[in-house]
Amino acid sequence: MIEPAVSAAELELDSEIVLCSKITVELVDHRADDIGVVRAARVSTAGERAHREERGDGYAAGLIDYLMRSRHGSPFEHNYLTFLVHAPIFTVRHLMRHRIWSFNEESARYREMNPVFYVPDTDRLLRQEGKPGHYDYVAGAPGDLESVQSSAKLVYGAAYREYTRMLDGGIAREIARMVLPVATYSAVYATCNARALMHFLGLRTKRADAAYPSSPQREIELVAEGMEAEFARLMPLTHAAFEKFGRVSP
Amino acid sequence: MIEPAVSAAELELDSEIVLCSKITVELVDHRADDIGVVRAARVSTAGERAHREERGDGYAAGLIDYLMRSRHGSPFEHNYLTFLVHAPIFTVRHLMRHRIWSFNEESARYREMNPVFYVPDTDRLLRQEGKPGHYDYVAGAPGDLESVQSSAKLVYGAAYREYTRMLDGGIAREIARMVLPVATYSAVYATCNARALMHFLGLRTKRADAAYPSSPQREIELVAEGMEAEFARLMPLTHAAFEKFGRVSP
Amino acid sequence: MIEPAVSAAELELDSEIVLCSKITVELVDHRADDIGVVRAARVSTAGERAHREERGDGYAAGLIDYLMRSRHGSPFEHNYLTFLVHAPIFTVRHLMRHRIWSFNEESARYREMNPVFYVPDTDRLLRQEGKPGHYDYVAGAPGDLESVQSSAKLVYGAAYREYTRMLDGGIAREIARMVLPVATYSAVYATCNARALMHFLGLRTKRADAAYPSSPQREIELVAEGMEAEFARLMPLTHAAFEKFGRVSP
Amino acid sequence: MIEPAVSAAELELDSEIVLCSKITVELVDHRADDIGVVRAARVSTAGERAHREERGDGYAAGLIDYLMRSRHGSPFEHNYLTFLVHAPIFTVRHLMRHRIWSFNEESARYREMNPVFYVPDTDRLLRQEGKPGHYDYVAGAPGDLESVQSSAKLVYGAAYREYTRMLDGGIAREIARMVLPVATYSAVYATCNARALMHFLGLRTKRADAAYPSSPQREIELVAEGMEAEFARLMPLTHAAFEKFGRVSP
Repeated sequence: MIEPAVSAAELELDSEIVLCSKITVELVDHRADDIGVVRAARVSTAGERAHREERGDGYAAGLIDYLMRSRHGSPFEHNYLTFLVHAPIFTVRHLMRHRIWSFNEESARYREMNPVFYVPDTDRLLRQEGKPGHYDYVAGAPGDLESVQSSAKLVYGAAYREYTRMLDGGIAREIARMVLPVATYSAVYATCNARALMHFLGLRTKRADAAYPSSPQREIELVAEGMEAEFARLMPLTHAAFEKFGRVSP
Repeated sequence: MIEPAVSAAELELDSEIVLCSKITVELVDHRADDIGVVRAARVSTAGERAHREERGDGYAAGLIDYLMRSRHGSPFEHNYLTFLVHAPIFTVRHLMRHRIWSFNEESARYREMNPVFYVPDTDRLLRQEGKPGHYDYVAGAPGDLESVQSSAKLVYGAAYREYTRMLDGGIAREIARMVLPVATYSAVYATCNARALMHFLGLRTKRADAAYPSSPQREIELVAEGMEAEFARLMPLTHAAFEKFGRVSP
Repeated sequence: MIEPAVSAAELELDSEIVLCSKITVELVDHRADDIGVVRAARVSTAGERAHREERGDGYAAGLIDYLMRSRHGSPFEHNYLTFLVHAPIFTVRHLMRHRIWSFNEESARYREMNPVFYVPDTDRLLRQEGKPGHYDYVAGAPGDLESVQSSAKLVYGAAYREYTRMLDGGIAREIARMVLPVATYSAVYATCNARALMHFLGLRTKRADAAYPSSPQREIELVAEGMEAEFARLMPLTHAAFEKFGRVSP
Repeated sequence: MIEPAVSAAELELDSEIVLCSKITVELVDHRADDIGVVRAARVSTAGERAHREERGDGYAAGLIDYLMRSRHGSPFEHNYLTFLVHAPIFTVRHLMRHRIWSFNEESARYREMNPVFYVPDTDRLLRQEGKPGHYDYVAGAPGDLESVQSSAKLVYGAAYREYTRMLDGGIAREIARMVLPVATYSAVYATCNARALMHFLGLRTKRADAAYPSSPQREIELVAEGMEAEFARLMPLTHAAFEKFGRVSP
């Protein structure tokens, strides 16, 4: 039994329901560093000697900058990062739009889902202004958060009660789960390479310094931020070049 | 204004909620026929003459059989089918696992969702037997369907009422939608080529004559069956070869 | 019998060898227009009504600009273009690095190759200056072109003579072809969607107005230019938006 | 300086030309084992507990067999293998048709190519019988190998002499290289996951026990055999299941 990754903003409710505002990303496996990018790129110019040669950090930074600026993307693909993500289904759906990635997700056909559901916390901007594609999000009015949480509790409670009732009555899991809300937490194994990760980060973070603006939903941006922290730690030169050239994946 | 594609097994409920059991697939655009497969394959052997030559049906059937049996897949990629699918979110999620495809889906961030929700009808096997990966589905006991529909109505009613209440209170659409169930209907544009379609059909239909057994959820199999009917009509020789060699995409 | 697509800068040589400087792109099939982009994008906001509604060109241009600037790429994928490309093998190799595309190519295992080989013509800049990744190409010195063509004739003549000699002696085609130069012309069926095409165009053209500089070899740039002309004709609004936002595929 | 990977069947020729019959595959990096497949698959049924649980080999073998037979492919994607391949260009071209892979290859635009060229050795079947798609390869007649090697030497010698002459005369590398034969050796970094590797192995080996027959050229099969040896060593349960169910990638 693991202790709940989803413990933070929890509010106990009824006997079983867990409300949670935390979205977590854990790096569970990887093989990724800047020197691997250099080695792959050097195959172009040094052929079979490339993966045995030694090169200093200054050389690496210069080459990686060049690759990023010129959008030579393939040297950033010879590596591997696997994350375990806990997030509500509506956020997992954003993640799984990315087709170069590999995914395995908790299945509501194969297992009974845990009663853990997402609710926004006080940090979440609750109101939108503007038109589709150009929304600005602003703080909620007084009482908004309580109102959202109250609606959430009511629906989640009813959904989980009926879900359990159907399961207890012998109904197949894949049918009973239809009443569960898209706020239900799911667990996903997500594997990518650095190039695919940069593409994801470019689209799923909102940054003033991006060459092309993006307006992701805040919940998937939390996933992106968790991944970006690991990426910046493992591949600092690559991450710096990504920032330097407008956060556009090569 | 279109008339509801989702009208069949509807049961009016409250003032607004629509319960629906129908999953629909409409071919909205395509460029796909058997002769295109022959032309692409003939580039290998006839080079630049390939796309101008005439060949009879017997020749085409023989070549397509050969390509399928030998898993020469690329000649099946030079074509294009776009479907409009209406299905509950949990089924759209199955569809969108297929990464060679292209998708655009109705967005609960950009628009207010319609109150149309999936419920199984009398054709649906409601109980599972066996263990994960080896389920058999069997008919429900007397009262099962009524029980499922009653649970569904209760949860969908609560979810839609709270969804509307939050929207009316000024809460952002992308937040309010979190209470909606995975049974909520969504519309998806889905584009593929014949090779990717065959891969999808191989995995998302349960067929005794398949070389490798598959156990898709019935709802995604309905999507697959809708697509397969169009595919068999447009590319009869390719479809026949797919059947003949075990329903394994080349 | 088609008349030679590869007739332009031909110089007859020996009895059989054809020297050619022309690289050709022919659009052999397609289903691609701007309105399809609008329809796919409108699924997000209009759901199932999207593909039936009528919208004016002003609306389309604005929406396409928005999609391009925000890198909403998926609406550009629901279309299809197939090209027949004639180019030397070293250029076909550049083309086939693009992995979202579909290809079928003339096979030297399955057929005897035609003795058509690439040589640069007077337009080609023959000398390079600078270091790897930052080359500038400049005009050749007097006599350079003649020298290159003379070397080419000598090698192509020897290669084709020995190729034929091996085939006549009963050696398998797949072995005999090993002596053929990378300048040998090949025919390729190449299928893509507009998004993948824009990615290709961004990398395989050298343009002062590109947000990210690229330095393709001139021969693959000729392929790109041929494709871009068709693309601009079929999807003028999409092409204009691609230009406007730095020639970075969404 | 590395000692030549390509030393085996070398025959010195002129002052510089190296003839070589050896095709080599070296595993330069990886993160791949059977337990990773189990962990990824267990996310479906155990959710967030999956990557922390311990399971015996019997359990793993049974689960992996089930995944392979049912074509549940995604659990085989959360891993990573990078190979360094030395092979003639015509074989590299076969390798690079595989689009899920990542590649970086020695560039004849960026560096001067080494004068190492492929020739078949005594193991190679030199003659073909049958028609396209159904070739059988049989041993050459007496004198065939000498004849092939003699043709090869003649053409490679002429090609490399003219290549060098153009380079010495100041012609750009990307132009001079056009005379080089497709037998020229190239070095490639090639990265894949186990699922993509199995797909490659299924198509690029000729095996009597395969569910679907394949007829790869022998040179790419040598690459496949080199990779398969590493794969079988790193992931013995996965490899055994691949064999057991007809060498069809899940």
